[in-house]
Amino acid sequence: MTRILFYLEHHSHKPWRTAFKEIDPAINFLSYPDWGTPDDGPAYAFVWHPKPGLLKEYTNIKAIFSMGAGIDHILADPDLPNHTPIIRMSDDGLKEGMAEYVTMAVIMHHREIHRFIAGQKSKLWQQALARAAHKTRIGIMGYGALGSVAAKALIPFGYDIAAWSRTKKATEQSITHYHGPSGFKAFLERTDILVNLLPSTSETIGLMNMETMSWLPSGAAIINVGRGSLINLDDLITLLNTDHLSGATLDVFPQEPLSSTHPIWEHDKILVTPHIASITRPDSAAAYVLKSIKILEKGQLPENILDINRGY
Amino acid sequence: MTRILFYLEHHSHKPWRTAFKEIDPAINFLSYPDWGTPDDGPAYAFVWHPKPGLLKEYTNIKAIFSMGAGIDHILADPDLPNHTPIIRMSDDGLKEGMAEYVTMAVIMHHREIHRFIAGQKSKLWQQALARAAHKTRIGIMGYGALGSVAAKALIPFGYDIAAWSRTKKATEQSITHYHGPSGFKAFLERTDILVNLLPSTSETIGLMNMETMSWLPSGAAIINVGRGSLINLDDLITLLNTDHLSGATLDVFPQEPLSSTHPIWEHDKILVTPHIASITRPDSAAAYVLKSIKILEKGQLPENILDINRGY
Repeated sequence: MTRILFYLEHHSHKPWRTAFKEIDPAINFLSYPDWGTPDDGPAYAFVWHPKPGLLKEYTNIKAIFSMGAGIDHILADPDLPNHTPIIRMSDDGLKEGMAEYVTMAVIMHHREIHRFIAGQKSKLWQQALARAAHKTRIGIMGYGALGSVAAKALIPFGYDIAAWSRTKKATEQSITHYHGPSGFKAFLERTDILVNLLPSTSETIGLMNMETMSWLPSGAAIINVGRGSLINLDDLITLLNTDHLSGATLDVFPQEPLSSTHPIWEHDKILVTPHIASITRPDSAAAYVLKSIKILEKGQLPENILDINRGY
Repeated sequence: MTRILFYLEHHSHKPWRTAFKEIDPAINFLSYPDWGTPDDGPAYAFVWHPKPGLLKEYTNIKAIFSMGAGIDHILADPDLPNHTPIIRMSDDGLKEGMAEYVTMAVIMHHREIHRFIAGQKSKLWQQALARAAHKTRIGIMGYGALGSVAAKALIPFGYDIAAWSRTKKATEQSITHYHGPSGFKAFLERTDILVNLLPSTSETIGLMNMETMSWLPSGAAIINVGRGSLINLDDLITLLNTDHLSGATLDVFPQEPLSSTHPIWEHDKILVTPHIASITRPDSAAAYVLKSIKILEKGQLPENILDINRGY
């Protein structure tokens, strides 16, 4: 009997329990604080922002599943047990949602919808011819499961797409690939609309700052659906106010929920969404977790397991 | 030497002249009012909202090209010469622009971006899980050159897509097809996000009214990128205010430019854009016109020629 130790604050555990039970009614789904004791037998944790110290207490945990693609919310626990495998979420619902959101945000910037929203406020009928898609350079930063899905969703529209990743990766033929620190500046210099899908690691925190964002061509836009820690928000605001950047769509923030006093909310060149670009869906996520548990129980390693050396 | 009689008010003719000359420097590009006289020899008109009576005066016109996909702006002329072929624009730029805009607008409604834009105004961090794409029913009304392009752009996202057209047409296997008056109600009853791409004809004017829009399921949204005359705006506003409809994205209006006193501008569930969903691009449009002229000069009929019986 598989035991799932579930941890999610501020949300109901019911849709999650239902999703697991629908796949396997025999699942023992235990929502925190009803986790029982560490002596109750082997269990798998499935968590989002777990309370620091909690996972160490439960020595019966065989693997820790993250409810999201990022695992920084787990690594933030200083008392995390050292040798327990940590697995990122990579269900189909997460990929679909990301393809939708990134495509929408890219077209909104390409077609300058922000300009028309402002025009509507002023009741101003002011047409403008957008740049053709093949003359619009999209840059996808991070080319893992979600980055590659986002890039592929944009290909049919005819954009000029490049990707940048930490290490060299195979990409679609129609995508120009840059990698490593040496390729970073050239990648940004050719990018009109930047999409960040990098995880939060010691290498990526603050990566987009006054210097690096200045490498983007004048009029460029930034979409952040990776992690909020990547972008220095003060520098972003300065570059928007001086018109070096034309706009930003931000779904992730250094602190979430974004404080109601943060100036970002009121900036007219920034669209704020509350970390909804891609939300893990109970049905597809439960299937993903149970499939991965079967692989672990055969003594094999599932996909998307944390590599501590690269930090995600 | 091909003579083009060009008519476009309120915009410069220069990019158009350049586009034609780049393809064939020998083109005689004549921008109104410098059209010469009807005795100057055979010519082709390329027009947008031509002054009524003008085209009849120029008896040397062999064919009339519309600058847009719609030709209602030409048929509005009561003195239009009877037997001159009229050709709709169908260049690649127009199709690309439409695929971009419709995809963006559909995802904005599907992902309820309007709710997050309102949340940003109130500085409210309020997450919500969107319906999965395969549970979201898109209905494309009008399945000509632009309707089919819009539908195909949406297929990779996994939406549940249907199309409705006047007559039976072949569609992609993954699209459910409805046609004719008998299929109209069933089509609307299964549509969560309706995209109108119908032309303005005696059959389509006022087609979306209190009765027909009520057939849409509660919470449905409407995107109009066809012609403004199709939707009764008073009825639309009533159905938005009673929450039967969740929102609308309107790019076309019964009268354009939309009057600055029109209540549509201030409606918080309507996104207004100034007829920019798809703008004819000089380079691809000039190539399309010159290619069609060559076909005409061989004594053949080009594609997209007006069929007066169906009205487009």
